[in-house]
Amino acid sequence: MSTRKPISLGLSMRYLGYHAAAWRHPAADPGAASDFSHFLHVARTAEAAKFDMVFLADGIGIRAKDDPPGSLCRSAQTAELEPLTLLSALAATTTHIGLVATASTTYNEPFHIARKYASLDRISGGRAGWNIVTSWSDAEAQNFNRDQHLDYGTRYERAAEFVEVVKGLWDSWDADAFRHDKESGVFFDPAKLHVLSHQGKHFKVKGPLSVARSPQGRPVLVQAGASEAGMEIAAESAEVVYAVPHDLETGKSYYADLKARLARHGRAPEGMKIMPGITPFIGRTEAEAREKYDLLNALVAPELGLSYLYGQMGDLSAYPLDGPVPEPNDPKVRSIAKNLLALARRDDLTIRQLYTTIAAGFGSRILIGTPKQIVDEMEAWVEAEAADGFNICPAVLPLGLEEFAEMVTPELQRRGLFRTDYSGRTLREHLGVPVPASRYGGPVVPPR
Amino acid sequence: MSTRKPISLGLSMRYLGYHAAAWRHPAADPGAASDFSHFLHVARTAEAAKFDMVFLADGIGIRAKDDPPGSLCRSAQTAELEPLTLLSALAATTTHIGLVATASTTYNEPFHIARKYASLDRISGGRAGWNIVTSWSDAEAQNFNRDQHLDYGTRYERAAEFVEVVKGLWDSWDADAFRHDKESGVFFDPAKLHVLSHQGKHFKVKGPLSVARSPQGRPVLVQAGASEAGMEIAAESAEVVYAVPHDLETGKSYYADLKARLARHGRAPEGMKIMPGITPFIGRTEAEAREKYDLLNALVAPELGLSYLYGQMGDLSAYPLDGPVPEPNDPKVRSIAKNLLALARRDDLTIRQLYTTIAAGFGSRILIGTPKQIVDEMEAWVEAEAADGFNICPAVLPLGLEEFAEMVTPELQRRGLFRTDYSGRTLREHLGVPVPASRYGGPVVPPR
Repeated sequence: MSTRKPISLGLSMRYLGYHAAAWRHPAADPGAASDFSHFLHVARTAEAAKFDMVFLADGIGIRAKDDPPGSLCRSAQTAELEPLTLLSALAATTTHIGLVATASTTYNEPFHIARKYASLDRISGGRAGWNIVTSWSDAEAQNFNRDQHLDYGTRYERAAEFVEVVKGLWDSWDADAFRHDKESGVFFDPAKLHVLSHQGKHFKVKGPLSVARSPQGRPVLVQAGASEAGMEIAAESAEVVYAVPHDLETGKSYYADLKARLARHGRAPEGMKIMPGITPFIGRTEAEAREKYDLLNALVAPELGLSYLYGQMGDLSAYPLDGPVPEPNDPKVRSIAKNLLALARRDDLTIRQLYTTIAAGFGSRILIGTPKQIVDEMEAWVEAEAADGFNICPAVLPLGLEEFAEMVTPELQRRGLFRTDYSGRTLREHLGVPVPASRYGGPVVPPR
Repeated sequence: MSTRKPISLGLSMRYLGYHAAAWRHPAADPGAASDFSHFLHVARTAEAAKFDMVFLADGIGIRAKDDPPGSLCRSAQTAELEPLTLLSALAATTTHIGLVATASTTYNEPFHIARKYASLDRISGGRAGWNIVTSWSDAEAQNFNRDQHLDYGTRYERAAEFVEVVKGLWDSWDADAFRHDKESGVFFDPAKLHVLSHQGKHFKVKGPLSVARSPQGRPVLVQAGASEAGMEIAAESAEVVYAVPHDLETGKSYYADLKARLARHGRAPEGMKIMPGITPFIGRTEAEAREKYDLLNALVAPELGLSYLYGQMGDLSAYPLDGPVPEPNDPKVRSIAKNLLALARRDDLTIRQLYTTIAAGFGSRILIGTPKQIVDEMEAWVEAEAADGFNICPAVLPLGLEEFAEMVTPELQRRGLFRTDYSGRTLREHLGVPVPASRYGGPVVPPR
């Protein structure tokens, strides 16, 4: 390997891939997102390709409203497996790859989350990570005794306290607390058990946690960190950040801003890996790559496509799909739809083209090209200090991952940008992020 | 197999077994309750012995108070793995055995529970069960924003509504809802998706669940059902009941009472299996069995043993362990300690003997004898209609399970009381309990 800085790679594997029409692709098995065997194949393929981790995004509910009519029944994003349950099954059937699951701080309790992720970390031998999110949709709120979602400020305030409690619970046991002395009958050293006794605005949690310290000291913390409050939580706690910027200049300034915040929390810049999401369409030629992209886009049912515009622009089904995006009459609607309208005007998009830009990647950055072109782009972001790695969000699974492993990973390895084998066993070791100290000062990594 | 009614067998596998001194047994690995490999061995041993299911009891917290001093650090019941996380990992590494995890209705949300168990049922190919409990300890309350536990009435009212919501969410999708029609772009039939829209006293949950109907229609529902409110929840919903009676006459009347309640809910008596917990000490001779029992009891550290009396009788460490159990001066203490005192007086027990009766099985019924004696007793309970099967709670794991599989299971099989191989694949098939109908009338078992 050259002296170039190696990059980190995550694989996003929700549903059947990130494209809204993934399930209609000729190579897709439409029911696979409900089948463990599909995810086992995906995780093992990512492990064979030496990815740092697999990742599961999550929402705790699906919309129950069929807006516009006929849209809901065309969406594959309605049935799946719960992330932690799925990752624990994968922990027992993989050996090296990191396992990151999303859990919401809005509708969970810190004790459950601390306990489950600590257990996953033990079961996987130190490969667990928690992607910290807040829940912002009414569909989720309505599954948890509310009519509407919590306001932004409350959500983030609760999230910050939630994370502090979880970290505190993970410090309950020093790594060398258990003496297991059959002769004297002493199971653990009481000086090495710590009772958190947290009392805050949102939570009152005594502890201790009933799970011994995990092989990574603590599971890896992951965050999206887009807003100011999100970036502050990330700066304090996150070891992986799934950044959102779509162009290099924004990426560079986001990276610089976030890394600069780390010092205030006594953290080194290397202790956080910034990994933007990308959805690659890979071809032996650029034309072949574009064909793959166009094939999938043509499979987005108009009823489904229009549903991605519905929330912001209302029902557009009366307008011609290949005509211009109409200007809403209602000034209130016009204000909500501002960003979408600006995009449509800038690129002179039709209604169909506008919904396709959403349906193709759901916020992940789309790269279309040859392996060389895609790796050039990845390398440019790393060299410009806009990324430490990437969260790969294939359009269709397992197909997109198999293509990436066959064509892109070898090119990354040829350039010395990516490992050819695992050198460590834990997710922290793969990422090169340190084990955090315990707030009580005790040892943090159990003897192996 | 004879015409005798076959029995169901569950294996309880919390910590290192049900005896308080299990970890000090010469054959025990004291740290095993934090290690996945231990539970994998236990589950696979139970599967090789054709058990219906493995079962994990649970509490969401451990006491943080060291009463009396020096007791807490002598308890192995302080570090474990979270049950659902553990069972999901076992789902991926076993093939037939049922997987039952406890989850509390007091400090959980129905949507999470419905989603996780439905996912476990899919991942395991139809082997999941949920043991429904309420949480009654202050140690648990203090991990969930409260000072004290909820009162009995509120807990059971909440539990009953919780179970109704979970069952409703599990009915969200008819078994044939997914059309996966790539040609037309229709993923599911909207008439076969049901939105619960529950509004009750404790919960408001809209749904639908984001998990497709599971291979068992619904995961199996398990309950302990000791109190009147608990028995009512059991009669309405439970398919397995872990009964508590310790003598045959009480067992018979409990069995008759509970089975009689089923008709009111339109259920057949065969649709519920009553399975008392037993902790067997097995020897080639009765003397050898008793030696095993005495060996473990001698390993209960007095500090730990006294902690089992502390909650009801206060600190007895100033009294001689081999002297009589003292009469508390305080009439209030005397009233709380009434049952323990009556037991001590009836059997003329010393302090040491009194705490040993608790430490040896934590409420599970203790059977000491040869395989023939133990099977005689099991058969007598089944013939007398006091049990449909048993939940085996070995004193030490994996040792007690290995002995049971080597000596007791073959005797049960010889008498035609227990299967020699699995004939089905799902936990419902093992138990012989039916797939419940959907409240919406649609198909409940997906095509295989």
